[in-house]
Amino acid sequence: MPEVPLQPAGQIAPRLSTRELVARLRGLLGPESVLSDPEELRPYECDGLAAYRELPRVVVLPDTEEQVVKVLRLCSAEGIPVVARGAGTGLSGGALPHKDGVLLSMAKFMRILEIDPLARTARVQPGVRNLAVSEAAAPYGLYYAPDPSSQIACTIGGNVAENSGGVHCLKYGLTVHNVLKVRAATIEGDIVEFGAEALDAPGYDLLALITGSEGMLAVITEVTVKLLPKPEKAQVVMAAFDSVEKAGEAVAAVIASGIVPAGLEMMDSITTRAVEDFVHAGYNLDAEAILLCESDGTEEEVAEEVARVIEVMKAGGATEIRVSRDDAERLRLWAGRKAAFPAAGRVSPDYYCMDGTIPRKNLGKVLKGIEALSKEFGLRCMNVFHAGDGNLHPLILYDANVPGELEKAEEFGARILEMCIEAGGTITGEHGVGVEKLNQMCLQFRPAELETFHRVKHAFDERGLLNPGKAVPTLHRCAEFGRMHVRAGKERFPDLPRF
Amino acid sequence: MPEVPLQPAGQIAPRLSTRELVARLRGLLGPESVLSDPEELRPYECDGLAAYRELPRVVVLPDTEEQVVKVLRLCSAEGIPVVARGAGTGLSGGALPHKDGVLLSMAKFMRILEIDPLARTARVQPGVRNLAVSEAAAPYGLYYAPDPSSQIACTIGGNVAENSGGVHCLKYGLTVHNVLKVRAATIEGDIVEFGAEALDAPGYDLLALITGSEGMLAVITEVTVKLLPKPEKAQVVMAAFDSVEKAGEAVAAVIASGIVPAGLEMMDSITTRAVEDFVHAGYNLDAEAILLCESDGTEEEVAEEVARVIEVMKAGGATEIRVSRDDAERLRLWAGRKAAFPAAGRVSPDYYCMDGTIPRKNLGKVLKGIEALSKEFGLRCMNVFHAGDGNLHPLILYDANVPGELEKAEEFGARILEMCIEAGGTITGEHGVGVEKLNQMCLQFRPAELETFHRVKHAFDERGLLNPGKAVPTLHRCAEFGRMHVRAGKERFPDLPRF
Repeated sequence: MPEVPLQPAGQIAPRLSTRELVARLRGLLGPESVLSDPEELRPYECDGLAAYRELPRVVVLPDTEEQVVKVLRLCSAEGIPVVARGAGTGLSGGALPHKDGVLLSMAKFMRILEIDPLARTARVQPGVRNLAVSEAAAPYGLYYAPDPSSQIACTIGGNVAENSGGVHCLKYGLTVHNVLKVRAATIEGDIVEFGAEALDAPGYDLLALITGSEGMLAVITEVTVKLLPKPEKAQVVMAAFDSVEKAGEAVAAVIASGIVPAGLEMMDSITTRAVEDFVHAGYNLDAEAILLCESDGTEEEVAEEVARVIEVMKAGGATEIRVSRDDAERLRLWAGRKAAFPAAGRVSPDYYCMDGTIPRKNLGKVLKGIEALSKEFGLRCMNVFHAGDGNLHPLILYDANVPGELEKAEEFGARILEMCIEAGGTITGEHGVGVEKLNQMCLQFRPAELETFHRVKHAFDERGLLNPGKAVPTLHRCAEFGRMHVRAGKERFPDLPRF
Repeated sequence: MPEVPLQPAGQIAPRLSTRELVARLRGLLGPESVLSDPEELRPYECDGLAAYRELPRVVVLPDTEEQVVKVLRLCSAEGIPVVARGAGTGLSGGALPHKDGVLLSMAKFMRILEIDPLARTARVQPGVRNLAVSEAAAPYGLYYAPDPSSQIACTIGGNVAENSGGVHCLKYGLTVHNVLKVRAATIEGDIVEFGAEALDAPGYDLLALITGSEGMLAVITEVTVKLLPKPEKAQVVMAAFDSVEKAGEAVAAVIASGIVPAGLEMMDSITTRAVEDFVHAGYNLDAEAILLCESDGTEEEVAEEVARVIEVMKAGGATEIRVSRDDAERLRLWAGRKAAFPAAGRVSPDYYCMDGTIPRKNLGKVLKGIEALSKEFGLRCMNVFHAGDGNLHPLILYDANVPGELEKAEEFGARILEMCIEAGGTITGEHGVGVEKLNQMCLQFRPAELETFHRVKHAFDERGLLNPGKAVPTLHRCAEFGRMHVRAGKERFPDLPRF
């Protein structure tokens, strides 16, 4: 491929002084929507990946799409980096500010513009919280399916930017499968709309391209999502196992039997013990691992599926099986799962959350590998994850006050991700690459593939002003990192010089 | 956005003479895989849209990915256009040859490389026929869900290029929802892989971008698809109605009731009469329209859903309801639907198939509009389509031997597509834009959006050598066409000069 002139992060030299920039932004948005005092900037210095922090030059909080467009046109004209931010709940540093740039908060875009119960769609502004969409749709018996654990706080705009998942994505898909249309502003301030309320749209699938693009291609100003009818009934089966591996194999067996549960999650004993104290879900604390398997649908469908799930779990060696008797109990069982990350704080001063995804058939093998690495590094690891779709969330427990432990945790994490790639998987299932997994991108992709990513970025944002330095490493960085991609499967045609 | 230097179709001036080109290609592939005699080229002059025909300079039939790479490197070095072709069943002219170019047939890529019953995936070469995937997966109780009517003949590579749909896409999604990974060669001959066997992949979603890109971005050399467990049971409800509108409203009512049928299709009386004679499906020929609504799943699920479907159809005014008693009867009912396009040849010398998609809630309104247009143009129109997902396939009947009828049919078709856009829909659901709907793209998209498409194309194929002149019109062409986009919804901020 021809060379793309890449703008490495941090080499952008904006012409405007901060004082001039603030003055011009205040002129566009009014003084109350522009923050520049260091104390006001502080809350924006990081997202959910707090190990990385940076103060932006200025924070803007526009009210309208027109103001967003004006900010982008100013930044584009003056060569100033722009980082868009939703609720800042992201876990890979995607909303980490740029020190020379404008942090564009979409927090004021909180309006639900339309709920169409017949077409089953919701048109919302990007700052609307994930859960607020389902709340607004509830009077019509509808809801929005993707449910990240942070759904109380995280926003739809951020969900689209990261292609967020959640417990129910096994049956209902990731964000990309539940978004119909996105309206966005390019760095030059052009408004573009991708997707359609109909099933498909002509032209390249830029809707899918924008989804999961981590704020690198455009600033989202409006999102139309699919709504689903709330299932008549939902029930959870909790199954306990005396080994993590057996639980992993039971997951594969459930899926292999043809069941697509609404959710299928695994928690190991470190996790269940950490959460049981405060959620009182009634988890089996003697088990090495438990599975939570949800069925939803009509009464009949649920009864039939639950019976089949129980059968498969028994055949897989479950030591205890319990079925939620009512919705309160079902929600308690899920509450522990959703609180697992914060609960890690009860058993360790610090933790580092990974997000590898592997083909389900390799679950047992990879879990065993993580156990071995845990011994090798002398660090404990909680395993709590979306087992049904092979999306692991190992939480590496460490103490940042012990010299060297953070580095050890990071190396442990990197080894887990390399193992995921070798097992035919990927380095992120739903949290994104951000700043956290740039090196692992070098392992997952060939140079020609990384270059294709850069060329797509260049097509939208020639000078690399939108969220610079995130998501896709430069080839230079990969060369410095010094390791090539380890993707499973041999490269073919070694005789052809360019492979 | 900055200007993109666009290479308009047909202005490419290859340096090599045809004689030299053929000699070099024969050197790369062997003489038997390079066709240059006009008689040998003839079968490749068009795809399923036979109104457009063009002979390529040469046809190549490589055997291996390595040979594909060599062909692409030669064409790239010499500035020769390349059009890739699967089975040539496409309906929008996507595989129409370029007169100065190489027609790259993937017909020899017919191997099923791997069926993994545990991971439920099939890894196949792009020339494998759609139905052959399901046949290979059948011994494991699995199948590949997307089922275009041409599935006996059409290939997976073509399905990916066009993001093909089919009867079962309402429940199981389009091709893009059933593809996990694509391996492809860029015009420069670099091998790239996008997607993963896992649920999600990091980086921009180039898998979705490639899917439906109509051969404009890369040449697909390998595809990994999802397989689904064959449902235990399937049953079809046939419901007859005394008006097309009532049938349209019943479709909306089925979906609104929360049922997601495996398929929900409509055929009007011109269609049922045309096909009944040779499929003997037992369609109600007195009805103005019939609906075919399929349920699949376990015995219990099907029984429950069929009962609900019957209830909704009755409430919607169905004059007759019949449920398939066995699989033979079910397949007969579908056979008529799948044969509807060829059957049009029985009632009219020529027909022109449209592919607009609209929000379901507007079905009744748009069907009425088509009826009015049919009177206005004095041309009959068969309506047979994927009603459940709002994907219309009006077949305009005309006689090419009557002077002016083709032009009338084309104008009628264009008016239908404009009506679809105005109803909040799109100009294609599953057949692609190709050469057929370039003008309608001008109506559907804003200039900034079309320019974004061109920039993405440019990111993959700087000189526009892959399938030139297809899928996305130049802004120049739109200006000449002289009509602006008619998308529903007002443009905001008329005061900002750039909108």
